[in-house]
Amino acid sequence: MKVLALDTSTMMATCAVLDENRVLGEYSLNQDMTHSEKLVPMIREVLYSLNLKVEDIDLYGAAIGPGSFTGLRIGIATIKGFAHLFEKPIVGVSTLEGLAYNLPCSKIIVPMIDARRDRVYTGIYGSEKKNIKTIMKPTVLDINELLSILNDSYEEIVVNGDGSLLHRDIINETLKEKVIFSTIGQNMCRAVSIGELAIKKYREGNIDNYYSLIPDYLRESQAQRELDEKRRK
Amino acid sequence: MKVLALDTSTMMATCAVLDENRVLGEYSLNQDMTHSEKLVPMIREVLYSLNLKVEDIDLYGAAIGPGSFTGLRIGIATIKGFAHLFEKPIVGVSTLEGLAYNLPCSKIIVPMIDARRDRVYTGIYGSEKKNIKTIMKPTVLDINELLSILNDSYEEIVVNGDGSLLHRDIINETLKEKVIFSTIGQNMCRAVSIGELAIKKYREGNIDNYYSLIPDYLRESQAQRELDEKRRK
Repeated sequence: MKVLALDTSTMMATCAVLDENRVLGEYSLNQDMTHSEKLVPMIREVLYSLNLKVEDIDLYGAAIGPGSFTGLRIGIATIKGFAHLFEKPIVGVSTLEGLAYNLPCSKIIVPMIDARRDRVYTGIYGSEKKNIKTIMKPTVLDINELLSILNDSYEEIVVNGDGSLLHRDIINETLKEKVIFSTIGQNMCRAVSIGELAIKKYREGNIDNYYSLIPDYLRESQAQRELDEKRRK
Repeated sequence: MKVLALDTSTMMATCAVLDENRVLGEYSLNQDMTHSEKLVPMIREVLYSLNLKVEDIDLYGAAIGPGSFTGLRIGIATIKGFAHLFEKPIVGVSTLEGLAYNLPCSKIIVPMIDARRDRVYTGIYGSEKKNIKTIMKPTVLDINELLSILNDSYEEIVVNGDGSLLHRDIINETLKEKVIFSTIGQNMCRAVSIGELAIKKYREGNIDNYYSLIPDYLRESQAQRELDEKRRK
């Protein structure tokens, strides 16, 4: 089974082709939100280099967020287009679970994605022999609130994601020797992690299609919030 | 500091550009030894997409083996060419240490690269808060010999690399519940791991250049062994 996976939730645009045993190709670029220009050429580059065509893909894996609203829309629209073309299944995977899956040998994993204004999209994950368990479901929290929960509950915490870089100082000050920051390579969203989780979910029967797949923004867009505000007034 | 790193020790050709904090781009292709055709176009693709030129690179990181003799020669010759052009330093990194660095949250990490005829290039690594310690230096061992050492010495062992896939059945039979196989994404050689270790070694003063950098084959090439054999006769 050949899987094409991608993640566009953060500044990192990443796509990968893998099967049940190995990565065939992975390409990731970290740039200031150029997903609309870069994503499709990146996918084409990888497929072409592997001598594969779109019809060779059996399953699509997409990071559904939380993360950048625009980024998510570009990624999900792209994957829906590909999957629709040859009527192939899609599996949506939480961006935070994907980040946690970069570190499946750690006991407590806390991925953080910048949600602006000192807040992070985050969750708490545990791992047991490569399986990721959700301890706290994806949510958006003030960084201080999250750190207070972590400080009260755990003795060793591995953090990753762009939010952990952005709030590095306060994380260090609050969690002190309890915290381990990830390596550079584990810090980034990886399409391979999304693809491998998509295979697992597919086997469990958690399958979406190009109609049912929707992004998980976790909070309303600024435009929607402003509209609601106006209506209330 | 911008680092260009690559690893061509296995079937996975992988290149990456990173700085001290984040991955700027990473591109990996897993194909039956097409490094000589694919590697330079891959590097060009990543640099071009990031709007970077070769002269923007401050440091080069190269996987020096063990692994495929031909693959290593292609990778090391390429990196020497680039580094020579603008007189930039190179840091050589063990391919096995690179693989271990994919899993810096595991206690005992045993990367394995296929060395043919039931042997693997391997080492034993331990990790402590993201730092990788070498417990057993890179060597070539019969898979059964390695498994017997591991079975006698450790209670929980994480394995990765193409050798761990190839010998999956015997590893499972011998180490049983002691062994954890890596995820698909951690199993592959990653240029990002080589690049991050290159930055660490550079800071410690372990710097090569385009004259001093040599591959670490760990054993003589078949041609050399046959010549020695002939001379002995």
